[in-house]
Amino acid sequence: MNSFGRIFRVEILGESHGPLVGAVIDGCPPGLPLAPADLEGDLARRRAGAGGTTSRREADVPELLSGVYGGFTTGAPILVAVRNADTRSADYERFREVPRPGHADFSAGLKYGGYADLRGSGHFSGRLTVGLVAAGAVAKKLLPGVSFTTRVVEAGGRSDVEAAASEAAAAGDSVGALVELRVSGLPAGLGEPWFDALESLAAHAIFAVPGTRGVEFGDGFRAARMRGSEHNDPFVDAAGRTARNGSGGVNGGISNGNELVARVAVKPASSIALPQETFDFGTGAMGTLEIGGRHDACIALRGAVALEAALAVVLADLALVARATAPLGRPAAQGPGAGPGGRGASAEGSS
Amino acid sequence: MNSFGRIFRVEILGESHGPLVGAVIDGCPPGLPLAPADLEGDLARRRAGAGGTTSRREADVPELLSGVYGGFTTGAPILVAVRNADTRSADYERFREVPRPGHADFSAGLKYGGYADLRGSGHFSGRLTVGLVAAGAVAKKLLPGVSFTTRVVEAGGRSDVEAAASEAAAAGDSVGALVELRVSGLPAGLGEPWFDALESLAAHAIFAVPGTRGVEFGDGFRAARMRGSEHNDPFVDAAGRTARNGSGGVNGGISNGNELVARVAVKPASSIALPQETFDFGTGAMGTLEIGGRHDACIALRGAVALEAALAVVLADLALVARATAPLGRPAAQGPGAGPGGRGASAEGSS
Amino acid sequence: MNSFGRIFRVEILGESHGPLVGAVIDGCPPGLPLAPADLEGDLARRRAGAGGTTSRREADVPELLSGVYGGFTTGAPILVAVRNADTRSADYERFREVPRPGHADFSAGLKYGGYADLRGSGHFSGRLTVGLVAAGAVAKKLLPGVSFTTRVVEAGGRSDVEAAASEAAAAGDSVGALVELRVSGLPAGLGEPWFDALESLAAHAIFAVPGTRGVEFGDGFRAARMRGSEHNDPFVDAAGRTARNGSGGVNGGISNGNELVARVAVKPASSIALPQETFDFGTGAMGTLEIGGRHDACIALRGAVALEAALAVVLADLALVARATAPLGRPAAQGPGAGPGGRGASAEGSS
Amino acid sequence: MNSFGRIFRVEILGESHGPLVGAVIDGCPPGLPLAPADLEGDLARRRAGAGGTTSRREADVPELLSGVYGGFTTGAPILVAVRNADTRSADYERFREVPRPGHADFSAGLKYGGYADLRGSGHFSGRLTVGLVAAGAVAKKLLPGVSFTTRVVEAGGRSDVEAAASEAAAAGDSVGALVELRVSGLPAGLGEPWFDALESLAAHAIFAVPGTRGVEFGDGFRAARMRGSEHNDPFVDAAGRTARNGSGGVNGGISNGNELVARVAVKPASSIALPQETFDFGTGAMGTLEIGGRHDACIALRGAVALEAALAVVLADLALVARATAPLGRPAAQGPGAGPGGRGASAEGSS
Repeated sequence: MNSFGRIFRVEILGESHGPLVGAVIDGCPPGLPLAPADLEGDLARRRAGAGGTTSRREADVPELLSGVYGGFTTGAPILVAVRNADTRSADYERFREVPRPGHADFSAGLKYGGYADLRGSGHFSGRLTVGLVAAGAVAKKLLPGVSFTTRVVEAGGRSDVEAAASEAAAAGDSVGALVELRVSGLPAGLGEPWFDALESLAAHAIFAVPGTRGVEFGDGFRAARMRGSEHNDPFVDAAGRTARNGSGGVNGGISNGNELVARVAVKPASSIALPQETFDFGTGAMGTLEIGGRHDACIALRGAVALEAALAVVLADLALVARATAPLGRPAAQGPGAGPGGRGASAEGSS
Repeated sequence: MNSFGRIFRVEILGESHGPLVGAVIDGCPPGLPLAPADLEGDLARRRAGAGGTTSRREADVPELLSGVYGGFTTGAPILVAVRNADTRSADYERFREVPRPGHADFSAGLKYGGYADLRGSGHFSGRLTVGLVAAGAVAKKLLPGVSFTTRVVEAGGRSDVEAAASEAAAAGDSVGALVELRVSGLPAGLGEPWFDALESLAAHAIFAVPGTRGVEFGDGFRAARMRGSEHNDPFVDAAGRTARNGSGGVNGGISNGNELVARVAVKPASSIALPQETFDFGTGAMGTLEIGGRHDACIALRGAVALEAALAVVLADLALVARATAPLGRPAAQGPGAGPGGRGASAEGSS
Repeated sequence: MNSFGRIFRVEILGESHGPLVGAVIDGCPPGLPLAPADLEGDLARRRAGAGGTTSRREADVPELLSGVYGGFTTGAPILVAVRNADTRSADYERFREVPRPGHADFSAGLKYGGYADLRGSGHFSGRLTVGLVAAGAVAKKLLPGVSFTTRVVEAGGRSDVEAAASEAAAAGDSVGALVELRVSGLPAGLGEPWFDALESLAAHAIFAVPGTRGVEFGDGFRAARMRGSEHNDPFVDAAGRTARNGSGGVNGGISNGNELVARVAVKPASSIALPQETFDFGTGAMGTLEIGGRHDACIALRGAVALEAALAVVLADLALVARATAPLGRPAAQGPGAGPGGRGASAEGSS
Repeated sequence: MNSFGRIFRVEILGESHGPLVGAVIDGCPPGLPLAPADLEGDLARRRAGAGGTTSRREADVPELLSGVYGGFTTGAPILVAVRNADTRSADYERFREVPRPGHADFSAGLKYGGYADLRGSGHFSGRLTVGLVAAGAVAKKLLPGVSFTTRVVEAGGRSDVEAAASEAAAAGDSVGALVELRVSGLPAGLGEPWFDALESLAAHAIFAVPGTRGVEFGDGFRAARMRGSEHNDPFVDAAGRTARNGSGGVNGGISNGNELVARVAVKPASSIALPQETFDFGTGAMGTLEIGGRHDACIALRGAVALEAALAVVLADLALVARATAPLGRPAAQGPGAGPGGRGASAEGSS
């Protein structure tokens, strides 16, 4: 159950130490120019180490194995695959007995009855964001005029993000971070009330990225402390711009043409060099766990582009759905056309 | 596009000033005892006014119009409907020209081309949470041994929640709030990595509730400021209990048997009695908007049960999906059975 | 699991002797003029008795209980309901012990563990085609320029259909029939290869109509006896017309602009007045079953419009999906534009 | 939009002359023993030439590139891939101007705006049934005790099937065929009324196989000519066996425990050696088309296993769904338990 999207549909597959990681993208319209080079920029962002990140070295060469012909998408499912090369399968079987705190070893062990591939965290590995990032790069090509600005704005509560990560790494530790996602140029009219609310779908995709612990839009958690007179955000011009964009670009689940703003809390990496006291299911008593291998000290540094990709996948899907469900005509009986609805504007042409 | 769920599937329907509000629930197994009285407790919680809430008075008598026979669910789709009685359709057409700040008037106007029913906010109204709350009540009956504890823990940053709401109401204003959802007794093994992560699905459903601005699990946004050695949460016994439940009951997208903990930021009601300066699309200039009618000062007071219902719907669906995808057997070759995975435990029987 | 469609999504609900039958239609674009009168023509076709049909008398007044405002669809889910009036619940409980041959009493008894509502066949009743027929009437309004011609071409192997039905009725028996569905004016480009093939989706929906035993397109079962040189159907003009439309308007799962032609085998009604020898699970021995009440002698006479509705629902959905996935541009590098693909024609504008 | 299934979900991908063909299988429970050898039997049936079949020679070595570890499925998505080796891309671009009769060249050209990969029919090629056949082989492993018997019962109206194919091949022609699918050992209780009827889902999947022109169950099209007294099929014992299995194992969309019987009409191969007169969109006049390359004379000979796989995929999915929606208990109030429903039997344990 690994697929997401109504028209632009993405399925993430692979394992950290298996032959490949990647994604299948279904529902991409034909005629989109697409080559492996289009994916490389975001894959490089994902790969790029900053202070203290994992020393796993992968070239991450994406292959487009189906759905592309003559440099264009064909309308058939697109398989993007990246082969795994630098795998060093240490004694991951041990984690069945001493599940790593913060990891899925324990819960996956129960769910999958011991059948999960735990090598390098298997299907749970952050390495699988390769497929998501590739899908996001395709999604962005479906959103002309839309631009994404993604920043790690804090790590460990500090704004000197890379220093915070380096210090944590030096201490054999890791550090959490706050990521801000901004999308400008987005047309109004994407999303629906209730279950297809833009925030619902965006949060769904963003929480799919490992390490996400919280998601907020616009004023977010600050809204819980505000009064309505302070929180309400008046329209200030005929384009629908609001005074301070407190709703983060979404009203009633539908984009309103202002900048989309989300913030994401990313946990510190659970794999740290420091020894940890945790329960040993083999001995039936507490024990000390040391996790060898390569770890990111601040997963948000490489993960931010995956969060951006998750959001892009949602927005591309909503843009295609909006083509399908655009209004059929203009209601003559419903007013003089002065208001935004009265102009008979469609989701596509409105912004 | 108003439905949600893979097996236990809910569709919300109706309008605030139309004939009814309600939900269709598909995929509910046969043999569940179900009567309108089972829904009344949660509907009463939704209806119950606290300081300063809306004066709309509805009896909210739920009718089970299909899918129930002889006091049990039959396996056929269940239509729950609540008729609207106390509707007073004021001049909502005006909001097409002067869209209310924080409401969907503007974005819906663009999306639906002027065809949306704006009376009492139509399909966007918080009144439609009636259907969600009813579905949640059914969902909880599918989760024996699971209990939900939902509290408004703050309003306007204060812990004396009802006083904060009353004061805001007295000032013609409204106030935001923070809601905490706790679920105990949940089996381990619900959810999947990636797009069917428990947090993904829960956030999806919770953000569908109008007014939600942020969702976090476990340590949530605090995790962004923590170090891994502080954030990691060791297992402390053979049942898989962790020391401080910082992950809020979910690892790798899968429930781990600890208490599920989520917090939700709810915005202040956008409809306030105070006059607001906002753009008038009719005159093409800024103007003053006064919103008459009945308003909740703190929508979280009545909305908390809707957030709980959203979560219950997700958990019931995941519990049914877990029945479908339980492991097929036990891998003899994979270890001595000492670890949680080695026990061949299934999602159903494991905790 | 009673819903169908990707964008234009239909869920059938209700029971024969419950309060109502109907459908929820989600994903209908806003701005479609819609009133109960639009549904009445097809509902009347469904109701109209011909020789020997059931004597159940229902006015079948459709109510649009959500999703419609001011005479237009709003984009919100549409609930169409028809209340049941003329219900006479005889001793249906007996059919749990002596399941009626050809009915679902036995298989539903096993599946639903005895919880199914068997009154008037409950959720299995042909009466639920009311909801499907209503959805089909909405679907047809989304297909301007498309016309449906549906005929019962044979009953009991005879072309004097109504006489065949009357004779069977007079004998306390029933008779099967062959229904032909023709759709002209359909744009080329609807459907996809593999699982979203037009025939796949059409057959899916058509087999959902009770009593369907076979579905074929174009040459259908005759194709099994043909040679390729005879079966192949050359194009004869620049519009893509073929010589004899042997493929029934579909190539590779995609409509080709020719008339869509399907034929459906409908079984004789299983409820007949003649006594039947069948197994009595109460006594554990064969026994004689007499089924009282009202029966259609030829269900195809009233069911044909339901088959048409099933097809219309599929075509409306595919037309909306085609809006979403239309090609993004024209491949300059791919030929002089002489062929159908070279014209850069989209699914929408092509026919 | 190439995926199918609710729990056991299959997506077909690849192109005839691209790097690979294959399938992604999601929702397969963990713990199923699975190795490439498990797929080889059915892939060999698909590959096996009979009189006059294509001379394309592919080893068709399946690779399991994800979702399998230590010889068992893990619960993660399974990517099955078969690399293409023996590709000879002739001048397929010509078919954009002179679309082959019976092929998708014309309709795909319109739909995909000229972007489709036409080499060897690209994504439309019968070669993609490799992925479906592989998925079917996995599906069958999820159905212990269930056996499939698939036969080409007629070709060109003759029962000496291989001779009919050889003769057609010798004449530069092709021939259609009739395939019978029988499934024994299937539990009762799979499927639902309406859109998840067993026949609906089976026909959906079967029509996805290229060349399918008609599908019928049990008496099929013969039922259209029968009387109810002749067609009705009484139960004859306490196990629910019926006298002549005229319903082909399904009542009310739900399996009844009898043998499932379907018949499929498969068209003659559209690619034949004989020259064909058809419209040349380049010249704007009729012209003569000769199709070189390798053709199957009777695609049903190799396609029958793909039809069987399509059916297996549906049945595996329904079996998993039945685990999710099994009745919750037994209705004490509903009778003495003498009938099949009264026994409180579940879909799983009933047969």
